[in-house]
Amino acid sequence: MTPARRIAVVGATGAVGRELLAILAARGIGPERVAVLASARCAGTRVEAGGFAYVASAYAEAALDGAELAFFAAPAEVARRAVPDAVRRGALAIDNSAAFRGDPRVPLVVPEVNGSALAAIAAGAPGAPRIVANPNCTAILLSCALAPLARTFGLEAADVATYQAVSGRGAAAIQELLEQARGRAGETPAVFHEPCAFNVFSHDSAVDRDSGANGEEDKVLAETRRILALPELRLTVTCMRVPVLRAHTEVVHATLARPAREAEVRAVLAAAPSLALVDDRGSNHFPTPLRATGRDDVLIGRIRLDPARPEAERELSRRVCFVLAGDQLRKGASLNAVAIAVALGAL
Amino acid sequence: MTPARRIAVVGATGAVGRELLAILAARGIGPERVAVLASARCAGTRVEAGGFAYVASAYAEAALDGAELAFFAAPAEVARRAVPDAVRRGALAIDNSAAFRGDPRVPLVVPEVNGSALAAIAAGAPGAPRIVANPNCTAILLSCALAPLARTFGLEAADVATYQAVSGRGAAAIQELLEQARGRAGETPAVFHEPCAFNVFSHDSAVDRDSGANGEEDKVLAETRRILALPELRLTVTCMRVPVLRAHTEVVHATLARPAREAEVRAVLAAAPSLALVDDRGSNHFPTPLRATGRDDVLIGRIRLDPARPEAERELSRRVCFVLAGDQLRKGASLNAVAIAVALGAL
Repeated sequence: MTPARRIAVVGATGAVGRELLAILAARGIGPERVAVLASARCAGTRVEAGGFAYVASAYAEAALDGAELAFFAAPAEVARRAVPDAVRRGALAIDNSAAFRGDPRVPLVVPEVNGSALAAIAAGAPGAPRIVANPNCTAILLSCALAPLARTFGLEAADVATYQAVSGRGAAAIQELLEQARGRAGETPAVFHEPCAFNVFSHDSAVDRDSGANGEEDKVLAETRRILALPELRLTVTCMRVPVLRAHTEVVHATLARPAREAEVRAVLAAAPSLALVDDRGSNHFPTPLRATGRDDVLIGRIRLDPARPEAERELSRRVCFVLAGDQLRKGASLNAVAIAVALGAL
Repeated sequence: MTPARRIAVVGATGAVGRELLAILAARGIGPERVAVLASARCAGTRVEAGGFAYVASAYAEAALDGAELAFFAAPAEVARRAVPDAVRRGALAIDNSAAFRGDPRVPLVVPEVNGSALAAIAAGAPGAPRIVANPNCTAILLSCALAPLARTFGLEAADVATYQAVSGRGAAAIQELLEQARGRAGETPAVFHEPCAFNVFSHDSAVDRDSGANGEEDKVLAETRRILALPELRLTVTCMRVPVLRAHTEVVHATLARPAREAEVRAVLAAAPSLALVDDRGSNHFPTPLRATGRDDVLIGRIRLDPARPEAERELSRRVCFVLAGDQLRKGASLNAVAIAVALGAL
């Protein structure tokens, strides 16, 4: 692709949308190239990002006219209608919602993991897809860590427990947590179904009555399998919310296909794109969501062979444990969307 | 044993000690039977618990005289010296610290799981031990959930990620979290090595430079294996702190020895002592630390067969997932200590 002359950001007043504008601004892309669109309710909202000031216009199909690239940071039900409109008007759409992630014709991409899925679009091949889906934030962070292990050692299984920030539910959730923590909130939570400050709760997506999995766990399972091109991966995930503002943490116990030494595992992770080792046993210095906030990389640490491994596996084991933390709004959403556009040559 | 006429509580001004006095008070046991002891620094501190008021005396060996039962809620380095003193003066000691948990002669007991380990003491057998170790809080909660599964289906492995409250580091940690959350704390954390509010961090116990496990994970591994009498159990544990005041949450992915149906698993857990099911998929109502606070039972929910299980295991699977939450200061510490005394006939 050639760089897009006109860019639309739909859902620009939300937490992900604002971050997206800031990342574009850091690349020198501002109001002269970017149309900022929002729901009718949020039209007129002033958005400041990276030194630029925007006023959001109400989204309407006509507002997309001339946009060669459209980022969508809107709810899935909006994206389901608006993304095809944008494509029909000639834009390439990068959608942050779950609306198209399950569509096998739509690439689901973390560029440094499966960027090859973008080749047809980048080459302008006839019939190439015009929508790219930005994966779920938890799946993006997890894929960055599992991909180098899968490539080097093979990956058989992983057990994941998440510690997810409230920002995944948007700016109102961040406000709710701050007010509760400061003792200024009423008794009844408004955004979440549980009190958030000083609490931990199962992820707020709906729980399937038959399987018992919640929507977030279903996404992480299906999307990580797809990004890693491991459709049978035994990936057991429990998704939880914690009173953290905007970076997700994940505890991962992985089972490799072949045994590895700890030093090999560490070297592979240290060399992987988008991972930064924060792993000092002596000073108890490891990834935390505060440390990951505002960072582009996924922080990874507590890297160890399973301490409960049998004696026979002292040196070489297939079980590897680690902790990661990544900025949910950046690496887990807006930054990955921009990286897709960059990989396509559209920015 | 016959009920103790005189009871000493050593470390009574700390978070666990105060809770212990409240639980004794709820059984009608107050100042006329209980001597309240603390460090020289805390002597003179007024402690109110369950309607009774105490003033802590400075701990000295002589202060234990006449005590037939002594609860220790003091740091391990204090217990290492003081517990043998109490035994020498004729008391049966129930120690909440890690000082004696690794000693094979000292029973390590969760009464509803391995209460039989108390038989010799209860029967007054000659040579019976005079110290009982109260296990680590995370191990107590985990054992309550894993024991019924191990008994019914056999247990081969479990992956555990913890969400631990700050109360495990005592009353000062609770205060630090509250002040940070309300924006009244300085920049530098005093109790923890990381900021606590709006953060998640690897457990604050020291990390072994060779294995990479931290002290808490080592305790959970060794103690859970011992309580369950499964010395080879493949128990992979990652321990994390979350900004929660006083109840621990644990995400558990267990591997049973034989396949089970979800309904069987649920029935076994529902019938187990000390577990309370909180498991409503329709309303997303599951265990949380706020819900577990002040409760005697361990709350358990999100019970499901692994949604990532292979198609061949649709109905019957060996992989079972759940979430538990329990009051760290009660079920995870003081209440279990009192339950040991009750099981011995000492209260």
